[in-house]
Amino acid sequence: MEIGEFQKLIREIYLARDARRGADRTFLWLLEEVGELTRAYRRSDHQEVGQEMADVIAWLASVANLLNIDLESALLKKYPRKCPLCSSVPCTCPFR
Amino acid sequence: MEIGEFQKLIREIYLARDARRGADRTFLWLLEEVGELTRAYRRSDHQEVGQEMADVIAWLASVANLLNIDLESALLKKYPRKCPLCSSVPCTCPFR
Repeated sequence: MEIGEFQKLIREIYLARDARRGADRTFLWLLEEVGELTRAYRRSDHQEVGQEMADVIAWLASVANLLNIDLESALLKKYPRKCPLCSSVPCTCPFR
Repeated sequence: MEIGEFQKLIREIYLARDARRGADRTFLWLLEEVGELTRAYRRSDHQEVGQEMADVIAWLASVANLLNIDLESALLKKYPRKCPLCSSVPCTCPFR
């Protein structure tokens, strides 16, 4: 599935609800999901980690929808098929 | 770009580095990016928010690569083109 298609799906399912809730409280939900992901990771529950990663990306998409941010464009702009810092594949940066 | 293609791109750029760093410290980087995203959101810097969302998804992909989690499969399993709780589009859940 294309990244933009997933964002559109989340818009269709949740935009009306996200808009009623507002961006600030939607962002708080995103952070709650990051907490749940962290707990699943700490517990080494890999199936749960996958589910929580899905939730984090879904809530990122909800916030992006409210701010009119195109996630796919943002990803391709930041990671144009190479490391954005050293421009190499694989990355040869002395850090990260 | 397909979600799986983006995860593969991050694997090609960063897997060797991510593996040397290890999963725990890679997860800490992910949380650092979530902090940067939160700061950009609080400052209402929408261009920066888009860039930080890209970083959060990239670091999610790095952690997923280390744990052999397929992000696209996890997303489609959790959000099979409808709300996972009420099975409707749009969502009609009494909460969220």
